[in-house]
This record gives sequence, C-alpha cells and structure tokens, in this order.
Amino acid sequence: MHLKDLTHPNQLHALSIQELQQIASQIRQKHLETVADSGGHLGPGLGVVELTVALYQTLDLERDKVIWDVGHQAYPHKLITGRYNSFHTLRQKNGIAGYLKRCESKFDHFGAGHASTSISAALGMAIARDLKGEKFKVVAVIGDGALTGGMALEAINHAGHLPKTNLLVVLNDNEMSISPNVGALSRYLNKLRLNPSVQLLSDNLKEQFKHLPIVGDSLSPELGRLKEGMKRLAVTKEGAMFEELGFTYIGPVDGHNLEELIAAFEQAHQITGAVLVHVATVKGKGYELAEKDQVGYHAQTPFNLTTGKAIPSSKPKPPAYTKVFAHTLVKLAQQNPKIIGITAAMSTGTGLDKLHEKLPNQYIDVGIAEQHGVTLAAGLACEGMRPVVTIYSTFLQRAYDQIIHDVCIQNLPVFFCLDRAGIVGADGPTHQGMYDIAYLRCIPNMVLMAPKDEAELQRMLVTGIEHTKSPIAMRYPRGNGYGVSLMEEGWEPLPIGKGEILRSGDDVLIVGYGSMVHPAMQVALLLSEYGIQATVVNARFVKPLDTELIVPLAQQIGRVFTLEEGCVIGGFGSAVAEALQEHGVLVPVTPIGIPDKLIDHATPEESKADIGLTSVQIAEQIRQAVTLPVPKFSQVY
Amino acid sequence: MHLKDLTHPNQLHALSIQELQQIASQIRQKHLETVADSGGHLGPGLGVVELTVALYQTLDLERDKVIWDVGHQAYPHKLITGRYNSFHTLRQKNGIAGYLKRCESKFDHFGAGHASTSISAALGMAIARDLKGEKFKVVAVIGDGALTGGMALEAINHAGHLPKTNLLVVLNDNEMSISPNVGALSRYLNKLRLNPSVQLLSDNLKEQFKHLPIVGDSLSPELGRLKEGMKRLAVTKEGAMFEELGFTYIGPVDGHNLEELIAAFEQAHQITGAVLVHVATVKGKGYELAEKDQVGYHAQTPFNLTTGKAIPSSKPKPPAYTKVFAHTLVKLAQQNPKIIGITAAMSTGTGLDKLHEKLPNQYIDVGIAEQHGVTLAAGLACEGMRPVVTIYSTFLQRAYDQIIHDVCIQNLPVFFCLDRAGIVGADGPTHQGMYDIAYLRCIPNMVLMAPKDEAELQRMLVTGIEHTKSPIAMRYPRGNGYGVSLMEEGWEPLPIGKGEILRSGDDVLIVGYGSMVHPAMQVALLLSEYGIQATVVNARFVKPLDTELIVPLAQQIGRVFTLEEGCVIGGFGSAVAEALQEHGVLVPVTPIGIPDKLIDHATPEESKADIGLTSVQIAEQIRQAVTLPVPKFSQVY
Repeated sequence: MHLKDLTHPNQLHALSIQELQQIASQIRQKHLETVADSGGHLGPGLGVVELTVALYQTLDLERDKVIWDVGHQAYPHKLITGRYNSFHTLRQKNGIAGYLKRCESKFDHFGAGHASTSISAALGMAIARDLKGEKFKVVAVIGDGALTGGMALEAINHAGHLPKTNLLVVLNDNEMSISPNVGALSRYLNKLRLNPSVQLLSDNLKEQFKHLPIVGDSLSPELGRLKEGMKRLAVTKEGAMFEELGFTYIGPVDGHNLEELIAAFEQAHQITGAVLVHVATVKGKGYELAEKDQVGYHAQTPFNLTTGKAIPSSKPKPPAYTKVFAHTLVKLAQQNPKIIGITAAMSTGTGLDKLHEKLPNQYIDVGIAEQHGVTLAAGLACEGMRPVVTIYSTFLQRAYDQIIHDVCIQNLPVFFCLDRAGIVGADGPTHQGMYDIAYLRCIPNMVLMAPKDEAELQRMLVTGIEHTKSPIAMRYPRGNGYGVSLMEEGWEPLPIGKGEILRSGDDVLIVGYGSMVHPAMQVALLLSEYGIQATVVNARFVKPLDTELIVPLAQQIGRVFTLEEGCVIGGFGSAVAEALQEHGVLVPVTPIGIPDKLIDHATPEESKADIGLTSVQIAEQIRQAVTLPVPKFSQVY
Repeated sequence: MHLKDLTHPNQLHALSIQELQQIASQIRQKHLETVADSGGHLGPGLGVVELTVALYQTLDLERDKVIWDVGHQAYPHKLITGRYNSFHTLRQKNGIAGYLKRCESKFDHFGAGHASTSISAALGMAIARDLKGEKFKVVAVIGDGALTGGMALEAINHAGHLPKTNLLVVLNDNEMSISPNVGALSRYLNKLRLNPSVQLLSDNLKEQFKHLPIVGDSLSPELGRLKEGMKRLAVTKEGAMFEELGFTYIGPVDGHNLEELIAAFEQAHQITGAVLVHVATVKGKGYELAEKDQVGYHAQTPFNLTTGKAIPSSKPKPPAYTKVFAHTLVKLAQQNPKIIGITAAMSTGTGLDKLHEKLPNQYIDVGIAEQHGVTLAAGLACEGMRPVVTIYSTFLQRAYDQIIHDVCIQNLPVFFCLDRAGIVGADGPTHQGMYDIAYLRCIPNMVLMAPKDEAELQRMLVTGIEHTKSPIAMRYPRGNGYGVSLMEEGWEPLPIGKGEILRSGDDVLIVGYGSMVHPAMQVALLLSEYGIQATVVNARFVKPLDTELIVPLAQQIGRVFTLEEGCVIGGFGSAVAEALQEHGVLVPVTPIGIPDKLIDHATPEESKADIGLTSVQIAEQIRQAVTLPVPKFSQVY
C-alpha cells in the first residue's frame, strides 16, 4: 500500500511492520518535499513519523482521540488522516494549515499553535468521556520543550490525581523545544535517555510484552496486577518523578523503532489512570542536514532538498525588523551591562541568539515559560537591571497577569519588545499578533510605542532602554523593513508620548501607528491623485497618545482615519477616538485595522487584501467616505 | 523585649530561643486581635509565625531579601518589620495593605496578591545580584497551594538549572491552598510529611547540625562536601522529586519548632545553588477554631475571638451575588448533567462549594491553575459538556492566552463567570476586577454580558448555559445584590445582544452596564431634581452591543454618558463610542468608569468616591456637562 491510498488511519491496522515502515518512509519523503517546496516546520514532524504511525496502529481513530501539542509536529498526522492529496497546499491560502484546526479534519480534535495545552484539553475530554459513560481513548502527544510550560505541569498534576481517569500522555522527547531546552526538567529527561540501562530496559520490555495476557479495552481483574507489574518492570528508578506525580511511566522507548513503539503503546492502553510513554526521538530524523542542525531546520522557508540551502528570493530584500532589533540590541548591550535580553524558547526567532553569542551573561532563555520570564524580568528590574523581554505578540498573551500584577502594578521598568505584532501570514489565527494594543493599553503605567520603520525601531530601542520611570512596550511587525538608512551608533531616544507630522493636507487626517505609517503615506499619495489632501501623522505612541498634536489637527481638519495593524476593538483607533471625545472634539473617526474576526493563514499580503488593509483599499475607503455628501465640521463642546 | 519594641527585624539576632518564642506569641496575639477586629486573612499568617521569626533570625534584613508569595501569609512579616503600631489599620483606607506592596516598606521587596510568582521574582533578583557581583541572600517563601500554579514550576525548573545561583525556596506546606489542595504534587508532599522517618530525620538533622563547621556567608572549600553531606543526610528518598529538578532538599521541618527551623535555615544558607526547605505548618496554628476549620478561617470578616463567630452587621443585607449565583447554578446543574462547574482553588469564594456538596461529579477544582482550568473546560466543551468556568475577574487574567487560543479561536462554548468584577475593596490593586471588559472585548467570537442585579444574574446564568454557539462571559460584582425578587425556577434566557430601556427622558442618554445600571437609575432621579430628564438603558451586553437600541437613542437625544465598573480605556464606554462612530452618529460620549490608575485598598464605597463613581458624583458630573453652553446636536454622516 502506498501512502496516497491511505484514506483512513484505521487502514494501518492491517499492515505488517514492513508495510508500516514503507508508509513511514513515504510520509518522510512527502513531508520533506512539501516543506522544501512551501516552507513550514521540518524537524518536528520528521521526528515523529514512526511515533505517529505506531500510535495510530494501536488506536481506533473512529473513536479514539489524539491531541497534538503545538501542532507543528502534526504533519505526519495530517498525511495519514486524508490530507495527502491536498498537502502540497500547506500553509497557503485556503490550503492545509501549518498547525491544527478542528475545522480542517474530524481527526483534528483540538486546535493548537501555542505550546503546552494538549494535556489539559485531553484531560477535559477524558473526564467528559467518563461522565457520559462512553469508552474511547484520549492521547496527548507533547514535546519535552512544551513540558517546560507551566500549564502542562498544572495538567500533569491534575491528571496524576485522578486514578480512574484513563489518559495517555506521549512525551516526544527530542531534547529540543525550538531552541535547545532549558531547565532542570530537560536535564532530568536527558538523564533518563542516557542511562545505560535504557536499552536493556527497552529490550526487556519487549520480551515481557510477549508474555503478557491480552486484556483488551474492557476492564479486567488482571489490570491491577498488570499495572503493578508494569511499574516494577518499566519504572524502577527511571521516571520516578512522573511516578511521584501519579503517572505510570513507560520508557524511554526508541522513537524510531516501530515494534518497540507499538509494544509500548499497546501496553499503555491496558493501564488504568494516567500513563506517560516517554519516547526518545531525533528531531529532523531521516534528513541528515536537519538531524545535524536541529535549530536551523526547526522551520524553513522553501529550500533545496539536496543542499539544504534556502532558495533565494528573486530580489534582495531590506533587513528584517528582527535582524535590526537584534543587531542594535547587541550594540547597546555591549555598552550597558545592565541590559539583559530575555527570550522564552524563541532565541533565533527573536534574534536574541545574536545576544547569546556575543554577551552570554546578558542573555536568558527561560524555555517555553512566558509567565516566569516576565516575572523574572520584574525581579531583575527591582535590582536595577534593564530587562528586555523579547516575546512575540501572540505569546506575550501567555504572561498577561504577570504584566499586570508583577510589572505594571509595581510600575517596574521592564521593556517589552513584541516581535511579530500584526498580521503574521502562514502561521495563521493562533499566531496573529493582533490583540496586544488592546490588552496592554488598558493597564495603568504602561507606555506603548511602535516604530514606523527599522530606523525608528533603533531609536525606540534606545528610548525603551533609557525609560526607567515605568514599564514600556514596543511592537514591530514580522518581515522586512523598508530599506531606510540605519545608524551603527549614536541613536537618539524619542520623547515619550510625542508623534510627528509627516505630511500636511487640509482634507483628511490620517493617523498611522507603527507598521501602518508608511502605508499611510502611500494612501496620502493615492488620495492626492483624487485631489484629496491628507495630513499624515506618525503617532509613535498609543499610550501616552500625543493629544497635543492630534487633537488640534483633528479639530482643524474635521475628518480622521486611524491606521493600525491590530484589532480595531479597543485598539489604536479607539485611543484616538477616546482622546478626541475627552477633549470635546466631535469629528468622525474611522478606525482602519484588523476587524473583529479570526485571520486565517495566507501570505501577509493576501490577509491584508482580505480585510481591506492594502494602501489601495484604504485610499479607496477614505475617498468614498470623504466624497459622500457629508458636511465637514468640527465642534468643541 | 516586647514585639512593639521591635523596630527592625535584625533585633531578632540578639534574642534567645525563649525570647523568640515570646515574640512569636505576641505576633500571634496581635495578628488574631487585628483580624478579629478588621477582618482579613487569618489562617495563612498564623501558620507561619515561627517560620517568619526563625527565618529572619538567620538573615540580615538590611541586605537579604525575602519574597513572600501571595502576600496573605505576610502579616507576621509586617509585624516584625516596623508596622506593629500601624497594624490596626489593616486593610483600611490609607492603612496597612492586606497584601505586600513595595511602596509600603523597604522590607517588602516584591508585591504580591496573586499566587505562584515569588520564585520567579526571587530568581530574577538572585541573577541580578550575581551579575552585579553583590552578596546577599534571596529567599522565596511559597505555600504548597501556590506550587500548583504552573508558573512556580516554571521557575523551579529554571532555578534548578543554575547550579551557581544561590536561592532559597521555603515551602510553607500547610496541606491547603485556600481550599484543600488539589493534585498529585499535593499528594506527594503529604507523603513526605506523613513518612514515619520524618521525625527521626528531623532529630538526626538537628544532631548533625551541631557538628557541622560554621561556614558563614563567604564561599568555602568546605561547601562542596557539605552540600553532598547534606544531601546524603537530609534527602535520601524524601524530596527526590525536588532533587531531580536540581534543588537541594531539606526537610520536612516542623514549622512550629523554632530551633529546628533555625537549624534548617542556617544550614540552607551554607549550600550553593537552589535549596528547598520543606516546612510543615498548621494553618491557623494557635487558634483552635482556625486549626479545626482551615477553609472557614482562611480569611475573615470581623469576628468574636472567643466564639469565632462573625460579628453580625448592624442591618440584614440582601443576598450576595456569589450566593445567588451558586444557588441558581446548583438548581440548573441538577436538571442538566452536562453542566460542570470549574474553580481554581476558590471553591468557597466563588460559591462552587455548594455545587461540590450537592453534585460532586459536576464539580472540578483544578487548584491554583487557571490556565489548565480554562483549557480543560475547552476539552470538556469539545465533548458536548457545558463547562462553567467560575474565576474572579482578576484571576482570569492568568488564563488569557487559553481564552484566546483554546476557547475563542476554536469558538468553543465555554461559559466564563467572572466573580468580583469591578471594585473589590480591601484587597486592593492586585485584586481589582477592572480590566476584563477591555481584555475580553477584543477577542473574536466572545459574547460579554453583565447583569444589573441578582435577579438578572439568574437569567444570564440560564442564558450562558443555553448559549452554545460561542464562548460567553458574565461579569458580576463582589458584594450584595439589591434585594430584588428572585425566582426558584423557570428562568427565561435573555436574547443575546439585546438591552432594555429602563426610563425615558429627552436630555441625556445614560447607558449602564452591569453593576452600574441601578446607579444609573439613581443618577437619573438626581438629575430630574435639576430638571434634566435622562433616558436610562441597561445594555446587558457589551458584545454584541445592542446598536439597534442605543444608536437611534443616541442620535435622538444627542448626549451620551456610559457607566461601567471597569477601566474606561477600551471598556464599555469605548464600545458605545465605537458603535456610534461606526453608525455615523456624531454625539458627545462621556465614559464614566475606572480611570487609568491603580485603585488602592479601601472600602468599595471609599474607592468609588475617590474616583467619582458614586451616584451623586456622577449626577453632578452630568449636570455640569449638560448645563455648559453647549449646542446639542446629533449628526448622521
């Protein structure tokens, strides 16, 4: 049987080990080819090919439910659950998503794009199952990296406390999260992996499985003894920690040996309560280049399969915001030993790997632990350090209470740098950085800014570091800057809460924030072709907003449009509208930004076009609005 | 020496064990008397009297820093750090705070009101200390309940990974959080406590300490061996889990034996790296009634010290919102087995203890683990259950990403019930439920509502349970309802997104949300005395907002005031203003709510008066606004 003929995962049941191995090879091949072609996550999926095939061989996927953590390890899952033929559309608009989505397949039982959620979701399903008196298996597959997220440990703590709730947790231990793993837990897992008794144990396990009676799904008087036997057999010193937390521990199992995997899963299914199968995998398995450079091949832009090199884009691009950020931060940190860059397992993504390289003492990777990272920064700030917390907009949501409770209420000078703020493209709805303006703006003491381009990012970076009166946050988009001139040193900080006028015109006032400022200028140019003259303001700060600049302009011009790459509800446009109302200036304010809906995966350009955020669309919207027979006026009351 | 003469904690150094015991007794007495008089947290502080005295005896508080988790266990700390004389002002306006605040004392190194943050903050300080080349001790004191919060485990994982960073974590293990603890970790700690070898170990430890060389603060070649010795001595099987995570484990220590505590702390100070001292305490220690009913005496309104009974308030009050909520939820759950109430260690606070009592299978306490609780609910919702996640507004901040990523992006029907939304009074800034409208309103798919009184809460509870098309949230305030008639059954759900007109008048439109609707009616009455006639709308929903009702009224009346008990930035008022702009109705909208600042502890009435939220103040604000010579107009564009 060829993978392309596998239309239902239950077809795996009939296959021999050799046939399963062929399927595994075909998955690996298709996976590699597709990601080389479209870009996407490479290493995580390649590492779990056998794990996926073996697990599904032991399950009835018509009833049983597998919850994949993060979702970037779920490409093999997608390939054997009916998506082989559409897999070439991976991460493309209207194509297969790069993460998991419940609406994409009946086999995607829980969506994921962020880490550490799978055990909680699976436990919820397992508890519901038992309450309803139904019978099916629930399996969470979680990486060792995701296990550093506190939420996963909260769930393990809860699951271990429910002796009668059957739940299988498969720990995909590749010794990595996205960057090499951090923390004592990781060291502990390594110890289990490297223990010389592991191989012995593993063989021993296999041998013992052959002699165990088949018990099936139904409860059996054998089970209690089996469980004890299993514990004596498989656990001993290994997995003591999980055992202490109430799990039956099986492992480590060779994650690329189908027979061992199947045996371990079959056995796990016999056990009552929470079971952890610890699977040792190699990230990027089967693709030598990826095995050797696991960080580099975690996720890829399109690349040449033979050389492993990225296929260069047709034209050279200006530097990415992330790159300018990292380069400038390193320069500043070299002059100021109090600067400490903090990342949550996103060292390369945020560019902080450059800081790690040059100034390892001024760099902290806390693992996938945003909550801890933010409060750690608060502690550093208490001692006079300048923590620069560099977390994607979407992941900073994970530390919301810490921002409020530990940073803002205490008014500690922590500097938040929100990369990937705005439309993120192929990563889709779980990763859109669209809420941060709204969720940060409502917190007292917080200063919020966004640069119009990569040169202003440099100045805002200095501004943030020199601002020690309160917390401060800067958001900047995914992708490339505009190629504006950059400085190598001597950046001047910007005055807090001050914007700038970029262009003057009497007909409309366009106030842009961050990544929408250059588009605002384009819009103004387009409008001028219709004879509509726009004043364009670069707000720079949404909090405090430059009311001294914006309010009189709004009053004078009488028609305001705000542009932002964030949700319009409660966002930058609301801030401008609130300020005008507060100052008694009654003029129409139209907020242009991300509407109140989820934005699916696509290219950023496609997403923007879908929601009317291209310069041409915005210009047309404004043209229509101002050419309607509306009396222009402003009013002070 | 009497406690009142203790002006600096370092004065403890000169005292004998007997004198320390006297100080401990005096702390306990003062603590009891004050809480009996003013209300506040009782059990947590009484449990750590000896722990605090012993710890401070071993520290130089001019240099060393102690970070208390949650802060409700820090009353003894306050009493020996110069606040004896002002302690009678506990939790009163301008008095001593019920939690920790950096601005209150130089000995309060990190503020806290929420749980699980102390280790992260302490580790940040310890890392900063080492980078600066300074020498002082950093100690985090955390309860076993707070340890179920994933963030604490994230921090332990990180700290255990830093072998050279000295950090002492004192685990105050009272077997409780606020309600009895949940989870496998708690069971594990119990096992350590109940182990028959504990007492032996403890005595043994004491004996050994006598023979250990005094090493002092400075590094010493003895240390390496000492550490190993300590490990062999104190650890063996106990604490294996913490050892696996990289901590040196000492314990369990009798938390009410000063000599044992001092010996354990002194020894811990000699050890390099992260050390955990496991202290077994009794919540409420020394007050028999509190020892016997640890949940009941966690926190108290004023009570009689002899009988332990609450001092009845002078006049009978209408039922609390929480009570009506719980009573109604139980009734509904009795008819609908799919309803599952979820609490995060706030069983009594949220009233879900009533559900636990009547329908234990429909009740889940996840511990202090809000993130897990929300995603668990998402899992339950996937299986067709009706999870009712009952979490205080302030604590729901801890699960923000889970609300976005696991619930709203997947559009799962989870029902969030936000108790204590709005001004909370004596608990102060860490507990104000003021951000939820802003932080929930920007998320797609979310429905948001708030009842005007306890009868409407009953209907909204039914509404939320019957609404299965999307996530839905209801916020309601701390404190008592209005005494309106309640139904025992037969509640009708409300139409989603529909408000109601309560009163008509031509001069101003007042749109109230939730707890500000009845005040809006009072305001209208006051205004009518000035001849100003107000239309009052009960919005019921902020999302979707009833634009069909509000927009024409606003257009017709021409002057809008919005009333909400939430932050005005991005809140209900912004929603109304955004809607009017969107519909082209250009009228003045004045948002009245919580301004952009922190609200300190005080009575709710005092806080409201401070920020202009009493009915009289609001009426006066509106009167002044509308009697200014402003041309009234409305405009459609």
